[in-house]
Amino acid sequence: MRPPVNYTAVEMTAEELEDERVLYGGLADSIRDLADASLRTTVAAEVVSEVRAEVVRLTARLRTEEIPGSFGVSLSSSGHVRGHGNAVVGLRNPVAPPLVIEKSADGRAWSSFELGALYEGPPGMVHGGVAALVLDQLLGEAAAAGGSPGMTGTLNLRYEQNTPLGACSGEAWVDRVEGVKTIVKGELRRADGERTVSAEGIFILPRWAREALEEHRQRPPRFE
Amino acid sequence: MRPPVNYTAVEMTAEELEDERVLYGGLADSIRDLADASLRTTVAAEVVSEVRAEVVRLTARLRTEEIPGSFGVSLSSSGHVRGHGNAVVGLRNPVAPPLVIEKSADGRAWSSFELGALYEGPPGMVHGGVAALVLDQLLGEAAAAGGSPGMTGTLNLRYEQNTPLGACSGEAWVDRVEGVKTIVKGELRRADGERTVSAEGIFILPRWAREALEEHRQRPPRFE
Repeated sequence: MRPPVNYTAVEMTAEELEDERVLYGGLADSIRDLADASLRTTVAAEVVSEVRAEVVRLTARLRTEEIPGSFGVSLSSSGHVRGHGNAVVGLRNPVAPPLVIEKSADGRAWSSFELGALYEGPPGMVHGGVAALVLDQLLGEAAAAGGSPGMTGTLNLRYEQNTPLGACSGEAWVDRVEGVKTIVKGELRRADGERTVSAEGIFILPRWAREALEEHRQRPPRFE
Repeated sequence: MRPPVNYTAVEMTAEELEDERVLYGGLADSIRDLADASLRTTVAAEVVSEVRAEVVRLTARLRTEEIPGSFGVSLSSSGHVRGHGNAVVGLRNPVAPPLVIEKSADGRAWSSFELGALYEGPPGMVHGGVAALVLDQLLGEAAAAGGSPGMTGTLNLRYEQNTPLGACSGEAWVDRVEGVKTIVKGELRRADGERTVSAEGIFILPRWAREALEEHRQRPPRFE
């Protein structure tokens, strides 16, 4: 039985994809900034209530026409994977930091990013689970970049020291491939480049997902 | 050397904490809803641009007075831990689902929650890293509920099957305590109650954190 995971196809040129990035990426950026402001504001209660009422009105405007359910992941005719809803890299997702991940065909993925007040766990520190969230994505992208895209099978994290909020970076690399399993390692680093969390994961591409991907493309998927 | 992690003290009555929950929790709920709408909307580009401009204006209103840096974690005079900025449970944090976690003194923590479009990884599915994020918090709260609060030392996750977006639940329990290490297990379940991800973590409370907590309270911390 094929699980209910479906990649959809979308016919979009590189130019249309770029327009989408500017328009919706800009909206997501602004809402992320609003979220940060709402967490840290100390304005009077009346102002908070007024802002909330405006937010409700804006939400209603956006909801007059919308995709049912979730954004999903679509494969463009140019072979790009359009995962704009993704909780880590999705440019349309205000919950995502979002990471811009660079990759190389030898199975490496890396990124520099900012984790601010919205990602706090211990005071002033990145939430341990956010470190896991970011590393899961980096490891998965490294597996894909190395030619073995897959979903997380196992993920083991070792927290070596706290990660202060602010500038961070991360990197992941394919350690080895064993059949349908890709073993990937990675690490999160704080602003001064010192490693704070190390990770190792096994990524597996189930048969149904391989088939779904094959239906829509000729060349290897690029998770972008 | 004590790391730069500081719990602050706050004098607030239970009533004031409740007022804060209603006012700021309400604002965060509305911004989370706006974020979801922004991810799924298909309204015209002009409307998107207008909404964005409004969001920028509202953000400026909230930023006229704000806490510098991050929200932090404060300990109230009643012994409650006020972690409203927390990325998983923080009621003021629009990035947090947020989870409302129940606990028992025998070291169990559990919660039922909704993970919608903002938490997507594979199409229609909860991001593997979001599962890790939620489980890290649940395991940490179970350790704290059992009397051994700590920070994540290691976290091992096993993804047994996909978790569809929507209603989810999770549970964690202290397996055993070995000196300053608390070994906690847990699992994430999909709507029908079937387990999708299992987790095991080691939580450790460093000496400096024990001291910081002792400075502000008489009785065991309740991470709420």
